[in-house]
Amino acid sequence: MTVNVGVIGVGMIGKDHIRRLTTVLAGAAVTAVTDVNLDEAKRVAGSVPGGATAHGTGQELIDDRAVDAVVVCSWGPTHEEYVLAAIAASKPVFCEKPLATTQAACRRIIDAEVAFGRRLVQVGYMRRYDAAYRALKAVIDSGDIGTPTMLHSTHRNPSVPGHYTREMAITDTAVHDIDVSRWLLGDEIIGVRVFKPRKNSLGGELEDPLFILLEMAGGALVDIETNVNIRYGYDIRGEVVGETGTASLGAGGPVTLRRNNLVADEVPADWRERFIGAYDVEFQEWIDAVRDGGTFGPSSWDGYAAAVVSDAAVEALHSGERVAVDLGDQPDLYA
Amino acid sequence: MTVNVGVIGVGMIGKDHIRRLTTVLAGAAVTAVTDVNLDEAKRVAGSVPGGATAHGTGQELIDDRAVDAVVVCSWGPTHEEYVLAAIAASKPVFCEKPLATTQAACRRIIDAEVAFGRRLVQVGYMRRYDAAYRALKAVIDSGDIGTPTMLHSTHRNPSVPGHYTREMAITDTAVHDIDVSRWLLGDEIIGVRVFKPRKNSLGGELEDPLFILLEMAGGALVDIETNVNIRYGYDIRGEVVGETGTASLGAGGPVTLRRNNLVADEVPADWRERFIGAYDVEFQEWIDAVRDGGTFGPSSWDGYAAAVVSDAAVEALHSGERVAVDLGDQPDLYA
Amino acid sequence: MTVNVGVIGVGMIGKDHIRRLTTVLAGAAVTAVTDVNLDEAKRVAGSVPGGATAHGTGQELIDDRAVDAVVVCSWGPTHEEYVLAAIAASKPVFCEKPLATTQAACRRIIDAEVAFGRRLVQVGYMRRYDAAYRALKAVIDSGDIGTPTMLHSTHRNPSVPGHYTREMAITDTAVHDIDVSRWLLGDEIIGVRVFKPRKNSLGGELEDPLFILLEMAGGALVDIETNVNIRYGYDIRGEVVGETGTASLGAGGPVTLRRNNLVADEVPADWRERFIGAYDVEFQEWIDAVRDGGTFGPSSWDGYAAAVVSDAAVEALHSGERVAVDLGDQPDLYA
Amino acid sequence: MTVNVGVIGVGMIGKDHIRRLTTVLAGAAVTAVTDVNLDEAKRVAGSVPGGATAHGTGQELIDDRAVDAVVVCSWGPTHEEYVLAAIAASKPVFCEKPLATTQAACRRIIDAEVAFGRRLVQVGYMRRYDAAYRALKAVIDSGDIGTPTMLHSTHRNPSVPGHYTREMAITDTAVHDIDVSRWLLGDEIIGVRVFKPRKNSLGGELEDPLFILLEMAGGALVDIETNVNIRYGYDIRGEVVGETGTASLGAGGPVTLRRNNLVADEVPADWRERFIGAYDVEFQEWIDAVRDGGTFGPSSWDGYAAAVVSDAAVEALHSGERVAVDLGDQPDLYA
Repeated sequence: MTVNVGVIGVGMIGKDHIRRLTTVLAGAAVTAVTDVNLDEAKRVAGSVPGGATAHGTGQELIDDRAVDAVVVCSWGPTHEEYVLAAIAASKPVFCEKPLATTQAACRRIIDAEVAFGRRLVQVGYMRRYDAAYRALKAVIDSGDIGTPTMLHSTHRNPSVPGHYTREMAITDTAVHDIDVSRWLLGDEIIGVRVFKPRKNSLGGELEDPLFILLEMAGGALVDIETNVNIRYGYDIRGEVVGETGTASLGAGGPVTLRRNNLVADEVPADWRERFIGAYDVEFQEWIDAVRDGGTFGPSSWDGYAAAVVSDAAVEALHSGERVAVDLGDQPDLYA
Repeated sequence: MTVNVGVIGVGMIGKDHIRRLTTVLAGAAVTAVTDVNLDEAKRVAGSVPGGATAHGTGQELIDDRAVDAVVVCSWGPTHEEYVLAAIAASKPVFCEKPLATTQAACRRIIDAEVAFGRRLVQVGYMRRYDAAYRALKAVIDSGDIGTPTMLHSTHRNPSVPGHYTREMAITDTAVHDIDVSRWLLGDEIIGVRVFKPRKNSLGGELEDPLFILLEMAGGALVDIETNVNIRYGYDIRGEVVGETGTASLGAGGPVTLRRNNLVADEVPADWRERFIGAYDVEFQEWIDAVRDGGTFGPSSWDGYAAAVVSDAAVEALHSGERVAVDLGDQPDLYA
Repeated sequence: MTVNVGVIGVGMIGKDHIRRLTTVLAGAAVTAVTDVNLDEAKRVAGSVPGGATAHGTGQELIDDRAVDAVVVCSWGPTHEEYVLAAIAASKPVFCEKPLATTQAACRRIIDAEVAFGRRLVQVGYMRRYDAAYRALKAVIDSGDIGTPTMLHSTHRNPSVPGHYTREMAITDTAVHDIDVSRWLLGDEIIGVRVFKPRKNSLGGELEDPLFILLEMAGGALVDIETNVNIRYGYDIRGEVVGETGTASLGAGGPVTLRRNNLVADEVPADWRERFIGAYDVEFQEWIDAVRDGGTFGPSSWDGYAAAVVSDAAVEALHSGERVAVDLGDQPDLYA
Repeated sequence: MTVNVGVIGVGMIGKDHIRRLTTVLAGAAVTAVTDVNLDEAKRVAGSVPGGATAHGTGQELIDDRAVDAVVVCSWGPTHEEYVLAAIAASKPVFCEKPLATTQAACRRIIDAEVAFGRRLVQVGYMRRYDAAYRALKAVIDSGDIGTPTMLHSTHRNPSVPGHYTREMAITDTAVHDIDVSRWLLGDEIIGVRVFKPRKNSLGGELEDPLFILLEMAGGALVDIETNVNIRYGYDIRGEVVGETGTASLGAGGPVTLRRNNLVADEVPADWRERFIGAYDVEFQEWIDAVRDGGTFGPSSWDGYAAAVVSDAAVEALHSGERVAVDLGDQPDLYA
């Protein structure tokens, strides 16, 4: 009954997923690990409850008969290789975002999965597993606010690390809002524009903030604010505007303080604090799906769409113009 | 069409009411003032727009033919004398709280007003004119939450001046909650208990906070928290619990701040900031009633009831026991 | 000490202002009225407290020596004539929006006022007098959230009357957000774009909702959502995004209800409920300024800027392109 | 590494715990079950992932060498027997509340555990594992609001089943608030009073609502409102009042709706919806403690204290008087 998982990449995120799989969730064991740093892989393997094999390569790990399913947390440029190998081995694979670093690579994964004939790939868009986002989607789907006409999505970080580049506001930050837009509205993106508000002086050389507009195929308009140096906290907000009402992510916290002339709720410090519960749900549902043959979450198609829209947005950032988005036909596998 | 008002007592509150009557509200003029400090009365008279007469005594002011209506803002022990004199002169009188400093004095005012046969007296319980309290009362009266069974009333001050005594937590602070309980629930108080929670070390010799329970004739239970050294702000809250729902004073402010890891609204600094709008409404409605012969607000009976319940609560504070409250029969004039 | 006001136009808004000037505020009297419907003007004149003269024309009213200051509430196309006449007569004039119906007409008013050498004209942008907007501006001006980079402004109406046309979403609705943007950010608009989200099926032939982007000279980006058929209420929201924090109009109401599985605050039904207090403040401050020679509120320049930006937005609505805005040099009078 | 759990009682709660232990949490297996209805026990045993033994008696289950730890979810009057048997077998035991149905029985468990010399018993007060309550306790313990002087605790149910009796408002409902008071304030209760507000007409023969006052040894005063027919939802609120500020359980939900003239958050429908996450945390921490020899949660002493205070509150309900509470000396084991 236990799903034996092999983890490729044991950096910070890989370690956290191993902790999750072994000490938080039901029904999984970690039986194999690998890493570009083999010594680190061995150390981690030795500390896994029940013990795990440290493999020299991802391919070896995927081929290990003690591995039922694969989790890919390695460096982005390696994702394509491991995901394709897992598909070739007919093993379910959970791939942290991005699915792959180019549209062409994403397409190759889609082609391989379609050729295989059944979904094996899930991409790590964890917001879809967040309780508040799920409640928001439930309201939309209920029809209680009418057909959505707009979505306002706000993505604020107190600060970003030194290696954060100009384009990462789109490819690393807004990409979550892009995925959520497609998922919440059940629709594809057909055009994108990027505006540059007055620069935040705390952002150094970055173009920060950005204001991104997405046109959905059905006509809804999405605006995304990214602000990655806003200091006050990690603040994720969203409001879906329907014809007769709106639904927003709740703004309250678990405790309300009355202190120092304020009535106040705390804002999360970072994405871990905000979304840690979503990761647990994401992996438990994935384990259950692997074991029971159930439906997987975000697909290769979703990973591909994110890549295409991100690329278009980066182009729009540079050109200042509207950039059209064309995903091509969606294979039936992802309908 | 203008109501000519004489103001007895030109201390801080008197000056504020003169400002209100002359520069904020419609339909009134201040034509006469007096004060125990006659020099101050003269100074104020000289600065009133249009000019005012400075009288040597309250009786002279009341007798002045240029005075249509009287506002009493003098020291509490003098209220009875001036209110009775105004009734004797058949002139409407607005008396700041308390109506009088003893139950017997309140009774004498009631008797005089009943003998006169028409209401002339209004007492300054300004919470009844606050927009939020009025909205709260409207919900109760609508029946939308069912019959009220409880009222939770919270009265917090950041600090109190040095002359604030132990009993003033009841006679100066909770007396507002007592009046509001009677008004919101449309019912009289028949019993009172006072509990002493752990003392706030910032309160020095005071018994602070207090927790007061009122039994209403119809069975509803009211609890009042007074906290007069709580530092964080002036915070007035109230929740009426009905059979099928509840209604509370709103907790939000005009602006929500996202700063320093908090999502926060400001708490008012003091009662002026919180209730200044209520004073304006209170006086405009009084002026309109004086001019048009309309209905006055809080009555002598309300002032008397506040005195009786306060006295009972002070007794309960000292004894630690339940103290019964008996107001006697209410004259038809106040029905 | 009393400011004698003449009111041109006694339709719904004119009558409401007369009520305000005579029964709510201090220091004003209405001494003259006129209307295109002279019979109606006479009826209203007869009902004004103290009585008023009914004039046959606006010019007569302006020339009346019993008129100190003029309020213009007539049909928009007549505004220019009356405002210019008031300037010619050296009388302060409060003009309901729009200042005039063309940019050229606004310019002629500016020229006349500049030639006169002192401000006489105030335009009725009442949001600047709303307590919540003022608190919002105070936060910005305090520097507590850093330099503003964005403003999100939301303008929702439950429904609009049958005569409401496509362009009115800009000229009647968003024009308030446009004025507020200039005022809150203390900056001029240099470009505008208008996007058309999916149409609300309840809006018939209207382009509804709209999503408008304004570029401020200093670089801040403003987005305005107009939604005029959203049914659930009249909802005005605004969030100023600064470098280190944000400030929003409060979302709470005076009472919080717990009923029917919800914790809920009521949304205002319409603009009267939401902004009635702002009108009172607006007129009291205007009366005080007229009497004391104080500073007036929104100027002819503000009225002109609103006209120029509205025209640009209407062009942008039709073209789908960015339209540049150039106000020309601001006369020193309005600095 | 897996903790093998035996479950006594497979009614609704027992089944839910089995689901939790086998499909939600890490590190546990259910290896044995029993129930007064043996057929039902066999059915459940057959459906447990991995299979479980159905025992004829609780004693057999406790003696089963394949059982590392025991969960007691049977009928309250049987708790003492099973908990004592688990202690006798030196096996950790998680006992759903109540620990036992009499104070004497609770004392016998304490004596047995003290004689054993190490904690084995945990009682199912799951609120201590709720994220919001934990955040509330963290604020108190941080000292940010000063020493607590009061706690307002509100416990509202939309309705109760037909078998709910008058005393259950205390023994089943308020008992949670009693436990939380002791835990949040880190203090024992020394006196209790119960007041009866106006009866809710929807409550039939019940005394509903109740208003309970607890005196803590350190002087803090706790008030508890129980309302078990309030229709609008399951609403758990709490505010700790400190010397310089207060901290409250957050009132917001995951989604804020703007519909039908309201800005609204949903209230949970029942305790499952509100506290389901707390049960997961409670059991995961218990499993971890069993496996690693860590510290257990609510103790036999906590179960005993709940019983003593509940009994005193029932007496206070009947007498209308203050009833003193004396727990006797706390064994060092529970310090």
